[in-house]
Amino acid sequence: MSDLFMFEKPVGFRDTLPKMVDAKNNVRSVLQREITRWGYQFIETPTVEYFETVGSASAISDHQLFKLLDHQGHTLVLRPDMTTPIARLSASKMRSDHPQRLAYSTNVFRAQQKEGGRLAEFEQIGVELIGDESVSADAEVIALMVTALKDAGIHDFQVSIGHMGFLHAVFYQILGTTERVEKATTFLLEKNYVGYREHVASLTLSSIDKQRLYDFLQLRGTTQLMEDATAIMEQNEGNNALEQLRKLWETLVDYGVQDVIKFDLSLVSHMSYYSGILFEVYTDRVGFPIGNGGRYDTLLKKFGNPTEATGFALRLDSLVEAAGTLANTTSPICVLFSEEQRAAAISLANEKRSEGHSVILQDIQGVKEMDAFTAQYDEIVVLVGKSGGRK
Amino acid sequence: MSDLFMFEKPVGFRDTLPKMVDAKNNVRSVLQREITRWGYQFIETPTVEYFETVGSASAISDHQLFKLLDHQGHTLVLRPDMTTPIARLSASKMRSDHPQRLAYSTNVFRAQQKEGGRLAEFEQIGVELIGDESVSADAEVIALMVTALKDAGIHDFQVSIGHMGFLHAVFYQILGTTERVEKATTFLLEKNYVGYREHVASLTLSSIDKQRLYDFLQLRGTTQLMEDATAIMEQNEGNNALEQLRKLWETLVDYGVQDVIKFDLSLVSHMSYYSGILFEVYTDRVGFPIGNGGRYDTLLKKFGNPTEATGFALRLDSLVEAAGTLANTTSPICVLFSEEQRAAAISLANEKRSEGHSVILQDIQGVKEMDAFTAQYDEIVVLVGKSGGRK
Repeated sequence: MSDLFMFEKPVGFRDTLPKMVDAKNNVRSVLQREITRWGYQFIETPTVEYFETVGSASAISDHQLFKLLDHQGHTLVLRPDMTTPIARLSASKMRSDHPQRLAYSTNVFRAQQKEGGRLAEFEQIGVELIGDESVSADAEVIALMVTALKDAGIHDFQVSIGHMGFLHAVFYQILGTTERVEKATTFLLEKNYVGYREHVASLTLSSIDKQRLYDFLQLRGTTQLMEDATAIMEQNEGNNALEQLRKLWETLVDYGVQDVIKFDLSLVSHMSYYSGILFEVYTDRVGFPIGNGGRYDTLLKKFGNPTEATGFALRLDSLVEAAGTLANTTSPICVLFSEEQRAAAISLANEKRSEGHSVILQDIQGVKEMDAFTAQYDEIVVLVGKSGGRK
Repeated sequence: MSDLFMFEKPVGFRDTLPKMVDAKNNVRSVLQREITRWGYQFIETPTVEYFETVGSASAISDHQLFKLLDHQGHTLVLRPDMTTPIARLSASKMRSDHPQRLAYSTNVFRAQQKEGGRLAEFEQIGVELIGDESVSADAEVIALMVTALKDAGIHDFQVSIGHMGFLHAVFYQILGTTERVEKATTFLLEKNYVGYREHVASLTLSSIDKQRLYDFLQLRGTTQLMEDATAIMEQNEGNNALEQLRKLWETLVDYGVQDVIKFDLSLVSHMSYYSGILFEVYTDRVGFPIGNGGRYDTLLKKFGNPTEATGFALRLDSLVEAAGTLANTTSPICVLFSEEQRAAAISLANEKRSEGHSVILQDIQGVKEMDAFTAQYDEIVVLVGKSGGRK
């Protein structure tokens, strides 16, 4: 292989060094424990799926999919998310007529065009609550997410909650066509509020309707928001959605997690299958959402199982960043021995390990640069020669 | 998508249901704890690597590689093993002049031509001890593997140990050419001993040399084996290798793991980079090796880092099978509530969860088939109506 290329990794892929692996393990195990306590069961699905099943049903755009061909000529994809594979699994082998609580912790893949710091592979931990249309289900996944984040030592985060049903009801009432609704929505998706205002100004609409679309951006807050949102409606078109948000708020208060919750009815997701309540999680330490979720009541229909579902996904690397602390790994004890003291050294290492210590047992013959080697350890035991020479 | 195809997964790929996921988690965490106590540090590398770097250096044959193209036209592979990516990482970002102890626990990929029960994706947990040429290093990885397997509740296993150096020395002395050595070795790789005998019989060799090749198959056992192996040599050609095996045995006795060790000098691996001591782990419960390992002193040279290394890899699904027990998951408590009792139900769930119980909190409105739903749980608390109606 060429020397320059020898150590390269594909665009967007990274090695993860021990401190970060340990930190991810710590955060993952805290989240897994909380998720399990809420009755969710962890499952695993293949890294590779058929494009025709999971790839095409996924909300991730086509140019972000890693595609390959199998020996039979079928197009395969590296899973771009876990919601779609779980929808497949839940509609087949795990099919059930009652609410199902499933969870996962695994890597997902999104192709990147160039090295710009965006990762092509990252670990998501999340849950899916399938077959429960009640607002209690939406509240449960949000409350679980908030509780798990706090467990993991993340405190300065905020959850923004929107409702695709409300946005669509108002936008369709004002704009009329799918095309015009999608156009306006795209500005919100990109959080390009200046562009949104300019776009609204350019439309052929009554000044009242334009004002309603401008006012839409102000639909942020908690309880007061409900009145503002009601004022924006013309014909009760978003009433059902607002009623859901009212009940969601009450339930989140019951859970005691309302301090990190803000509604933002202009919230739109790149996950195109969200159909109702949806949310994103932000923290000051990380420049993009560290998690997101929402209700997707039409995805399972694609797998022949017309049932409702809601869930969340968190990015594990972002959670470590948000927690702001890497694991405090204690330096292992190093036991250095020569052949004559091998049995004594093994016995000492066994003893220390059984007490829970981490012990490196090193034959002196295997060390090329002794000073550089020993410089790595705070505690070194040397066992050499006939007498032992322990120091 | 077509209905028949809807639930299919690519050839050799599987979903993993909750009981198996829990069982894998249990075994993995026991192994991770022991590996960490021996001073190994866990790292992660990308699922996808360049074919030119890791793919071509891997010991996995080309037709078993999953290949894809990136946007720049480079050929990528799904990693077929972890030894080669760790060799890349160890030779670049983690480069060091002294012994390095690295570990991993991750999925690897081997393409399958047809559905025959062989998996295209499975999890390996393993270690690599890099930069230590001493026999102590070989003994350490074997002793660690044996200790970790016993920790995981696996007891009826056996480790077969061979030595590529000894086999090559004797075979070259008798057979002369690489081509003839490889031909004979292939029968051993396939454990086709009848084929091996027929092949030896067909060769133009002295009857003494043929007998030496027949006798090679009998080089199995522990301490007695050393004499048999010495008898088979003509010109001390395997002396160094035998000396290493003698020292390895002594060291494994010091570790107290000799009861599961047998030498088998006809052992050959499909991992073509093994150059010295190598081994496989068997158990009666699983029809193929549940783990393997060995010394590979030439692989790191391919990454510009000419240093020695040894390691092992275990298949996590096989370990679960070998342990013979799935996790005993206790059924969660189910708290069923109507809206009026929501706050009380949440409070009860919080309390039980903080005591470590797993609790499913279910709004009655979200349940379609009540009897089928409640049949899943041993313990159900129903909180409905103004008075609570707890039962």
